[in-house]
Amino acid sequence: MKYCSACGHEVVFRTPPGDSRPRFLCERCTTVHYQNPRVVTGCLVSYEDRVLLCRRDIEPRRGYWTLPAGFLENGETAEAGAIRETWEEARARVEVDELYTLFSLPHISQIYMFFRARLLAPEFGAGEESQAVELFREDEIPWDQLAFPVVRETLEHYFSDRQNATFRTRTASLIVDPARRR
Amino acid sequence: MKYCSACGHEVVFRTPPGDSRPRFLCERCTTVHYQNPRVVTGCLVSYEDRVLLCRRDIEPRRGYWTLPAGFLENGETAEAGAIRETWEEARARVEVDELYTLFSLPHISQIYMFFRARLLAPEFGAGEESQAVELFREDEIPWDQLAFPVVRETLEHYFSDRQNATFRTRTASLIVDPARRR
Repeated sequence: MKYCSACGHEVVFRTPPGDSRPRFLCERCTTVHYQNPRVVTGCLVSYEDRVLLCRRDIEPRRGYWTLPAGFLENGETAEAGAIRETWEEARARVEVDELYTLFSLPHISQIYMFFRARLLAPEFGAGEESQAVELFREDEIPWDQLAFPVVRETLEHYFSDRQNATFRTRTASLIVDPARRR
Repeated sequence: MKYCSACGHEVVFRTPPGDSRPRFLCERCTTVHYQNPRVVTGCLVSYEDRVLLCRRDIEPRRGYWTLPAGFLENGETAEAGAIRETWEEARARVEVDELYTLFSLPHISQIYMFFRARLLAPEFGAGEESQAVELFREDEIPWDQLAFPVVRETLEHYFSDRQNATFRTRTASLIVDPARRR
């Protein structure tokens, strides 16, 4: 951020009076430009004993398998965003159950949330950002070709909880050492 | 938003190619300025049979009682944000348990999350944004002076779940009719 989005003047990066951390602020119109984490919302979609995965057709991690998910939009509920992303990426219509996993990814300032959801009929297809969409049984999951740690953790919890027929919401933080980021 | 924060040029509000909704975008440097919901994170703090409430000293709802909470910051986990806000507003040091409630407030593009947390000693005080901080038993809760519906719902779930000694994460959307907003 170099310029004030309200008045066009150059911004400075400085701690405003009464605040505890530096912000981009405009010395002409006094606007403080707060920057906050973004929410990614998606679905863990099941159909009978299988779950729905999408093979990404966009970077990062193009060609790897993921759960349908994307950035929550203004004016949208978390569930509505998860349903929309599932439609956009997997052309699947789902009914959403509970929030299942919530991850903090502070190194990229994101909050990831996955809802458990049910596919009412085995109808789906690759959306614009997917190369392929498929249903997988537990023993068919491409564990070494999953796109993100949040996908792996959500799937691991799911298959473990499913054995006990009890699902509960999990919260976790994925702390990444900046030196080990790729 | 009137000006591009990257180059200072005036922005237009238009649907970018391949997108499905209008964004602020810069026709000079081609930056798309996405705007997304913000996350508010906080704690439902208990001590023995009481819960901790803060009387707000800032608008909106100055003078009304709330749970300590505030905007999640970049680089922060949801739990760390909840702990920080509890310290800033209630001068209370807590240990966080599970995520307890998650609310979508699409009319103001916010996601609210409250974690259950425990006060290890009855030590607390009014932070800069609070007029007072107090522990309340269930029959002492100022129900008609609570600041926000998310606070009421979280407290209602808590006292109900506490009777059964089982807490589970709740997700809800609070849809507000724009015509009824104040």
